[in-house]
Amino acid sequence: MSVADRLASLGLALPEVAAPAGAYLPAVRSGMHVYTAGQLPFVSGALPASGKVGEGHGLVPAVDAKDYARIAALNALAAAGSVVPLDAVVRVVKVVVFVASDPSFTGQPGVANGASELLAEVFEDAGRHARSAVGVAVLPLDSPVEVELVLEVA
Amino acid sequence: MSVADRLASLGLALPEVAAPAGAYLPAVRSGMHVYTAGQLPFVSGALPASGKVGEGHGLVPAVDAKDYARIAALNALAAAGSVVPLDAVVRVVKVVVFVASDPSFTGQPGVANGASELLAEVFEDAGRHARSAVGVAVLPLDSPVEVELVLEVA
Amino acid sequence: MSVADRLASLGLALPEVAAPAGAYLPAVRSGMHVYTAGQLPFVSGALPASGKVGEGHGLVPAVDAKDYARIAALNALAAAGSVVPLDAVVRVVKVVVFVASDPSFTGQPGVANGASELLAEVFEDAGRHARSAVGVAVLPLDSPVEVELVLEVA
Repeated sequence: MSVADRLASLGLALPEVAAPAGAYLPAVRSGMHVYTAGQLPFVSGALPASGKVGEGHGLVPAVDAKDYARIAALNALAAAGSVVPLDAVVRVVKVVVFVASDPSFTGQPGVANGASELLAEVFEDAGRHARSAVGVAVLPLDSPVEVELVLEVA
Repeated sequence: MSVADRLASLGLALPEVAAPAGAYLPAVRSGMHVYTAGQLPFVSGALPASGKVGEGHGLVPAVDAKDYARIAALNALAAAGSVVPLDAVVRVVKVVVFVASDPSFTGQPGVANGASELLAEVFEDAGRHARSAVGVAVLPLDSPVEVELVLEVA
Repeated sequence: MSVADRLASLGLALPEVAAPAGAYLPAVRSGMHVYTAGQLPFVSGALPASGKVGEGHGLVPAVDAKDYARIAALNALAAAGSVVPLDAVVRVVKVVVFVASDPSFTGQPGVANGASELLAEVFEDAGRHARSAVGVAVLPLDSPVEVELVLEVA
């Protein structure tokens, strides 16, 4: 099944590639790998939420942040798709999920699973990857999450 | 000398691979490189300490955090060893050490040396690597450190 | 035009490679890639400023931090130049810019453009890269920025 068909079976479609927030590219291919820029969870050009993830007033709930990580991963696939056909992806190699975190919030792996689970749904075994999940002070535009990928392509 | 023999000469043994804290793998090989997931300093399945690194009441002392970075690097070798024989490693290429830091703590390089020195002890010249050390707000499970590796394999 | 000539035309010269702040190397070549260590904006061995980036008393202004990101990127080129001739660089693949950020500061992309724009000036189209910009709690020596590169070499 093609990546487009699999996305459709998940009720998803590849979004437009988000315009870079600076003097860089959404993704670059080098040899057999594609490196994406760090992707925010833009939906139709806007962030669905902003702020730090955690429990308590004014913070982004972890369950919502997991959804945003899924969206950011989908945007990262769109970014990769701007330089290679996604059907050429033979392996998701590495994923880094930065979670803008209240210092008391330690559930970054659960948030990052939003990205990891999407990749497994889309690429099945080839979507299983090494991952780092990190809680950072703040992200661009006060985004709750940022996701970057390294993909192996045929 | 094999990696196992060298570890033994250091009084170390490769630990069990820590179960990933989410929907990902401990390490992935892609071409001539192995990428590990970010590794925490688990010892027999538990973190030896939690919290932010710094000076003062309630913070993890830097000297302890350096030990935890060493443990996390050993766990990262175990993760890599789950996908390749460690004797196939020809070069440690890149190391990133995330240090959960009190904002006043600026000694991340000294903490990260715990990882770097272990890698040099195990692989000698082939263990010398490029490195980034960064002070982050918080890490999964409130771990004081997280270490990820890129290794070149034969 | 050689990289040295282009730097000269920009009024720049490659600085001395900063001594690593620990048990690691400024850069490592592996196959067709060079990975640099995270580089701070040292000028003649000293940081031009320290602290967190943001708006308000005691913080580093974003416009200054952009300059420091440019300096750190130049230092990263010097680090890469310690393992390959820079004229062998065929592509800047990936750039990560860590910005030590007050939690209210969300302009990391503008700061990171200091690095990205330098790379485009030096390498033109080959200098356009994928990038992640992240706001972290604190950096080594209280540096406002840290920049790491992945370069493809011929």
